Amino acid sequence: MPKGTITILGLGAMGSAVADRLRATGHDTTVWNRTPAKTAPHRAAGSNVASTVAEAANASDLVLVVLLDHASVREHLEPVAADLKHRVVVNLTTTTPNEARSTAAWAAAHGITYLDGAIMAVPDMIGRPGARLLYSGDENAYAIARPVLETLGTAEYEGTDAGLASLKDMALLAAMYQMFGGVLHAIAMMRTVGAAPTDTARDLVDWLGALIPIAADFGADVEKREYAAPPGQSVDFTRPALASIITASREQGISADFLEPVKKHLDELAATGRGGAEWASVVEQLTIE
Amino acid sequence: MPKGTITILGLGAMGSAVADRLRATGHDTTVWNRTPAKTAPHRAAGSNVASTVAEAANASDLVLVVLLDHASVREHLEPVAADLKHRVVVNLTTTTPNEARSTAAWAAAHGITYLDGAIMAVPDMIGRPGARLLYSGDENAYAIARPVLETLGTAEYEGTDAGLASLKDMALLAAMYQMFGGVLHAIAMMRTVGAAPTDTARDLVDWLGALIPIAADFGADVEKREYAAPPGQSVDFTRPALASIITASREQGISADFLEPVKKHLDELAATGRGGAEWASVVEQLTIE
Repeated sequence: MPKGTITILGLGAMGSAVADRLRATGHDTTVWNRTPAKTAPHRAAGSNVASTVAEAANASDLVLVVLLDHASVREHLEPVAADLKHRVVVNLTTTTPNEARSTAAWAAAHGITYLDGAIMAVPDMIGRPGARLLYSGDENAYAIARPVLETLGTAEYEGTDAGLASLKDMALLAAMYQMFGGVLHAIAMMRTVGAAPTDTARDLVDWLGALIPIAADFGADVEKREYAAPPGQSVDFTRPALASIITASREQGISADFLEPVKKHLDELAATGRGGAEWASVVEQLTIE
Repeated sequence: MPKGTITILGLGAMGSAVADRLRATGHDTTVWNRTPAKTAPHRAAGSNVASTVAEAANASDLVLVVLLDHASVREHLEPVAADLKHRVVVNLTTTTPNEARSTAAWAAAHGITYLDGAIMAVPDMIGRPGARLLYSGDENAYAIARPVLETLGTAEYEGTDAGLASLKDMALLAAMYQMFGGVLHAIAMMRTVGAAPTDTARDLVDWLGALIPIAADFGADVEKREYAAPPGQSVDFTRPALASIITASREQGISADFLEPVKKHLDELAATGRGGAEWASVVEQLTIE
């Protein structure tokens, strides 16, 4: 565990929550923000305030980066590469996997020990139950920073590829947005006949909650790439079912835009002789060769 | 409850499961199928076999219709309208809401007491825990048929509009397919870095299971049409998050086709000055004016 102060670069909503939590758990903190005004409450609460990124970098062995995006990370870190040498940098800024890999490569070229992080929580959740943070990159950096990182939320190390934390974050979020897209589609359909959205939502919580364990069966089939279709789950069975849902949506004056790509890919499976397979085999359509 | 035999029209996988279940629960049954060969096992098990739809219709006060689709329902019922007069017809065939409404109107014009049903189960589940059947249309028909229908699975009456059962079925299925589409998208992304689909699926079961109760909050907001965005949930916040997920997908060689329509509709909200609203307000984009 690093001795002394911990540096936090960036005091947006998330960076501030991180600094607050570290102070609350007894850590000495040094903060920097591009707009100095945002440092005032942190100074008042006991943080050291650095006036430059270089000063902030030199203050600590552990530097947490919580900036707006990948561009701002590179804009602020590149000029201080020499100052960060041999220090542990944990980048909690939301970036894509390839952006994380790019920053990891840059860090390695400058002797910086780099860990990438993905925060699966909103700022209010930092340090509270349910906050989950994923990390990937340098294993030593994770081992060193872990006691500090665990004060922010559940910490999970995904592997040495610096892009893994971000990739897993994005994969889980992709599933989340599609699930809630489906929820909103269903609410919209039922609202057309006067069903209260709260009633539809309650029904959906039970329905989807009961169904979600089936994802494990899909996972097993994808793993084996064996798509023998149980009754009522083939591509050929599912296509007319989706067609009916799309027709029913439109007849009620509701767009089926969110669902149509699933139908389109099932049509492609059927058109290429794979209509008898389990519909979950559509996952193979998602790989762009 | 109707005295005497119950007629089942159609002995596909679902119709056979219905006939099996009714016999198993002590009901006298009369079956008809377009292809007579399929009646043999039912005759052997104790069902009466009718050689024509008219004969089957005249055998019972309660006629369950479990045919392939709407077209086959109309093809087989229209010629026997006079035979069905004053009888209760429960149409369990999968149709769209408007098809159900059309058949209900036809039935009403011929003095037939019509109930439409939607089976939220695969044939194997009929009569077993988890089988859920939705009904809508004539209330008297539901009251009369209910004791028989409850042997098939949990029975829910949705209202007098004959399209309601089908609509709710389709709305719930729309949400289901979108949720599983998201699951498959996430599995595909993680598979690119060697993550076992079973591991990703296990993570998704926990993740989505923990998140699904948030649907109730979305339902409440949609009901009030009040879309004040909590931190990190505005359209403007969600758009770059979705853009990153789409970029990350493509960089891993995975199509983001399933997710892109959500991004497209959020872009439209932002372009029309509604970027500060909660992203769930995208539900208003789904209503086609």
